Amino acid sequence: MNDQYGREPNFERAVPPGDNMERSVCSECGFVDYQNPKIVVGSVTTWNDKILLCRRSIEPRSGFWTLPAGYLELHETPEVGAKREAQEEACASIEIDRVLAIYSIPRISQVQIIYRATLKQDEIAAGPESQEVKLFPWNEIPWTDLAFPSVDWALRHYREVINAEQFSPFSNPQEGL
Amino acid sequence: MNDQYGREPNFERAVPPGDNMERSVCSECGFVDYQNPKIVVGSVTTWNDKILLCRRSIEPRSGFWTLPAGYLELHETPEVGAKREAQEEACASIEIDRVLAIYSIPRISQVQIIYRATLKQDEIAAGPESQEVKLFPWNEIPWTDLAFPSVDWALRHYREVINAEQFSPFSNPQEGL
Ligand SMILES: [Zn+2]
Ligand SMILES: [Zn+2]
Repeated sequence: MNDQYGREPNFERAVPPGDNMERSVCSECGFVDYQNPKIVVGSVTTWNDKILLCRRSIEPRSGFWTLPAGYLELHETPEVGAKREAQEEACASIEIDRVLAIYSIPRISQVQIIYRATLKQDEIAAGPESQEVKLFPWNEIPWTDLAFPSVDWALRHYREVINAEQFSPFSNPQEGL
Repeated sequence: MNDQYGREPNFERAVPPGDNMERSVCSECGFVDYQNPKIVVGSVTTWNDKILLCRRSIEPRSGFWTLPAGYLELHETPEVGAKREAQEEACASIEIDRVLAIYSIPRISQVQIIYRATLKQDEIAAGPESQEVKLFPWNEIPWTDLAFPSVDWALRHYREVINAEQFSPFSNPQEGL
């Protein structure tokens, strides 16, 4: 799985003792690869009426615009993870307001927790995974250059509750499941 | 990691090529164990004013009362996972209403998505992981025999929004982080 030792694990499907499902088991060393769904945390972050987007400098979808978001790390709360991603990708210090949406992409076993957030100050800059970061007024959002469908969903869902104090988090739009 | 092959993987900490963090790497075969936070999905499910609880038949906390909840499987949405857990643990067919809470237990890298739900019919029975399942009126909830702190949190949070249509999901109570 990496070339550090010049060897490759050799996985086969088998039911580990005490389990009730087939898993990937390494036939070399017996390691069981318990794969789990992955959690992405991110935010629709605003400064006044403008929305923070980051133009990706890495694959997949390099050159396209996305929300500051990424994988939750071990021992991290989702809120802390969303703040860290804004810091890493846009050098942005953000304040979490509330949960905007929980999306899921079952095909790739991903659950996304997206917060509504605000910038603490008007200072942003591209981090290593961004070519460019920018605050967009609604009518200038680059809709056709968004990196992922869930970026589109989150922006539109954000707009629906822009003046709402209390709301239930959105999930995937009907056409998005 | 299991005894199926009579061998044990031999993990050491190393930074895989292209990565920026130490991970567990098997010195036998080079497998990188990218550990991720785990997602638990569950529900506070009611029938009229009574709340469904399950008395655990498995460790940890065998004999104590819990909500129907468990790990999200690969390629499963959180809503489908919460329904599956209610079915498995209480033979209960449930309807998801909305997200009640997102709790996180960073010590064990766990994120819990707990829904508010209702039983579709008044038919429940203990599944293989439950000794007993029961619908409790609020004033008979076995507070001192709950399996986990987050069960207590979810019940009290449920109570706070019992008549609310729109509300933001709760997160860990102050004393619970
Ligand atoms: Zn191996
Ligand atoms: Zn190995």
